[in-house]
Amino acid sequence: MTSLLGPNRHLIGCDSDTLARELSTPALMVDLDAFEANIATMASIAEKAGRKVRPHAKAHKSPVIGKRQLDAGAVGLCCATVLEAEVLAEAGLPGLLITTSIVSPSMVARVVRAAQKADDFMVMVESMAGVAAFAAQASPARPIGVLIGIDVGMGREGVTSAEQAVEIAARIAVLPQLRYAGVQAYYGHLQHVKAVPDRHAKVAEQWARLAPILDALTAAGFPAAIISGGGTGSHHIDMAHGPFTEIQAGSYIFLDKQYGEVEIVPGGTPFRTSLTIAARVVSTVQPDRVIIDAGSKAVSTDYGPALVVRGAPEGSTYAFMGDEHGAIRVPDGTARPPLGGIVELVAPHCDPTANLHDQFHVMQDGRLVDIWPLEARGH
Amino acid sequence: MTSLLGPNRHLIGCDSDTLARELSTPALMVDLDAFEANIATMASIAEKAGRKVRPHAKAHKSPVIGKRQLDAGAVGLCCATVLEAEVLAEAGLPGLLITTSIVSPSMVARVVRAAQKADDFMVMVESMAGVAAFAAQASPARPIGVLIGIDVGMGREGVTSAEQAVEIAARIAVLPQLRYAGVQAYYGHLQHVKAVPDRHAKVAEQWARLAPILDALTAAGFPAAIISGGGTGSHHIDMAHGPFTEIQAGSYIFLDKQYGEVEIVPGGTPFRTSLTIAARVVSTVQPDRVIIDAGSKAVSTDYGPALVVRGAPEGSTYAFMGDEHGAIRVPDGTARPPLGGIVELVAPHCDPTANLHDQFHVMQDGRLVDIWPLEARGH
Repeated sequence: MTSLLGPNRHLIGCDSDTLARELSTPALMVDLDAFEANIATMASIAEKAGRKVRPHAKAHKSPVIGKRQLDAGAVGLCCATVLEAEVLAEAGLPGLLITTSIVSPSMVARVVRAAQKADDFMVMVESMAGVAAFAAQASPARPIGVLIGIDVGMGREGVTSAEQAVEIAARIAVLPQLRYAGVQAYYGHLQHVKAVPDRHAKVAEQWARLAPILDALTAAGFPAAIISGGGTGSHHIDMAHGPFTEIQAGSYIFLDKQYGEVEIVPGGTPFRTSLTIAARVVSTVQPDRVIIDAGSKAVSTDYGPALVVRGAPEGSTYAFMGDEHGAIRVPDGTARPPLGGIVELVAPHCDPTANLHDQFHVMQDGRLVDIWPLEARGH
Repeated sequence: MTSLLGPNRHLIGCDSDTLARELSTPALMVDLDAFEANIATMASIAEKAGRKVRPHAKAHKSPVIGKRQLDAGAVGLCCATVLEAEVLAEAGLPGLLITTSIVSPSMVARVVRAAQKADDFMVMVESMAGVAAFAAQASPARPIGVLIGIDVGMGREGVTSAEQAVEIAARIAVLPQLRYAGVQAYYGHLQHVKAVPDRHAKVAEQWARLAPILDALTAAGFPAAIISGGGTGSHHIDMAHGPFTEIQAGSYIFLDKQYGEVEIVPGGTPFRTSLTIAARVVSTVQPDRVIIDAGSKAVSTDYGPALVVRGAPEGSTYAFMGDEHGAIRVPDGTARPPLGGIVELVAPHCDPTANLHDQFHVMQDGRLVDIWPLEARGH
């Protein structure tokens, strides 16, 4: 029961008929072929463009997936939380970058301990206080890499002027326990701009905002060896035209409903949907719907209803019905899925949906071939 | 790192000054005095009304809290998932009731195993197939109690006619491995009707719907010894006038923003807010806001923004800024909280917010007195 592999661990190796009977639901499912194709596609795009990828582990929180991304050529992995960095460092994965501001001494201490366990560890800082917090605990024997966070329109974290960036770089440069490595500039608010030309225009505005800061750093003697930013939505434009040495894409491994509505490259997307939620029909009493066992504790509520992709007629819809339930309505004249049947959904938003689960159930050729725990989930 | 007590376990016993420096955030906090007052208040209301309470463990997923509710007189605990039932049964807590429809053989098997470990275990069924599923695996040596689910306007789970209810009761009655115990009728969609008279009128409509079904069961020789339903929002009306022998309230132990907007009893609420999310200011670069480390992976997004209750001037507001961040804006002319400072939020909706965390941090008299793991969180 408390195994990291969860209640379906005895089903590894079973075919889909057995899973239809036996799978404990709701369960997060990964189509391994689509997932591997997505990793290979992003690696290939980056290689052709002469850029690196540092995939964001916030999407999966899993050392197994992180290792696959590194094996495919990723330069490292981004982490959004201290726990993600701890779990991935414990697994020995190199090139970790904490992309969020960490300032409290106790959490900095956790980061510094994690940085002992994995090579090429970096953090983002965006204030002199942030530099001081890491300087107080890091050791010259094992300097921690630092990227200076620069705000590119999100208004969340990051300095807003060249003066601030240069001041921070100059301070880092004199501290033997820190290693100035470059900058981070992430425009998460532009990743889902739907049309390519609109997105291109908006990210180009942010490149224009970033350029004088990069120039000032260079002029002051602190050229940015690493310029980290971009994401799944902007990666194509970023790699073709942007200032970045590396892209922080996360969702490309799964592709969700939200990214399914975005023209990621002209005409569509190079990625396939690999992540679904398998739920079971638990009530057929109501004549106009069936009830499945996936609600707001199995599917994130921040981007509308999930899409129905398997187990119900085409055109079927999903609606949230509380924490543990959803309603599936089928088109007029089509048959409802039977009691006990499995219905699969595409997540509205993959990151917060995966965060509700503890295991990825990995499917290939109609079999459950593996289970990957989300070891770094939670707070 | 993988301790059930989480990264703050070394802080048990520490005072709020130490926590302000040391607490790893975001962290789910419980005000023990308010929490205990809520449990005592509900127990006292039920005792005066001559009704029972079977609190819903979906709100807390914690054996420690379940045990406290039982110690205060609760007749048992409701569970929404098989995992909740497994964890609470493993802890030996009696009177568990799974309130949701379970039909697949593998999940029924998990329930039957859990039922071996704790006394007076019950399930809800709402179809002949559901009866058959449990009958196939339960043992006459340890019969499982069954409540028949009756739909009272949610359109989610539960039979809709007296004929269906009587048919199911008659079937259960001849099966020695099951024990007919009564009915469940839950109107979750009415719990948040804001004004008492409006809510009273709407729940009374559902009592009128339930009454002929109860009468038919009695007439057929299957009187319902247990009539389980109601919740935090309707408990006052349910206990004064409703047909229920027991109330399935869950959120009353915490009270969230959503219930804070409901007139639970005439003129207000008998409960106090006991649950908050402690987050830390991680950026003060933007002049009009500060950024804290609690976003949509620490605060549920299904009922608007969280309320700011401590650590920032009165009138401050919270806005989601992605998975890991939120923005706090303070009223004009007031001081922003400092970098590294702790801001506390009231959850918009307590159940899905608690579900994002792994530990409750229990505070009393300005000290962290305990940490309670949410052992039954996840899928």
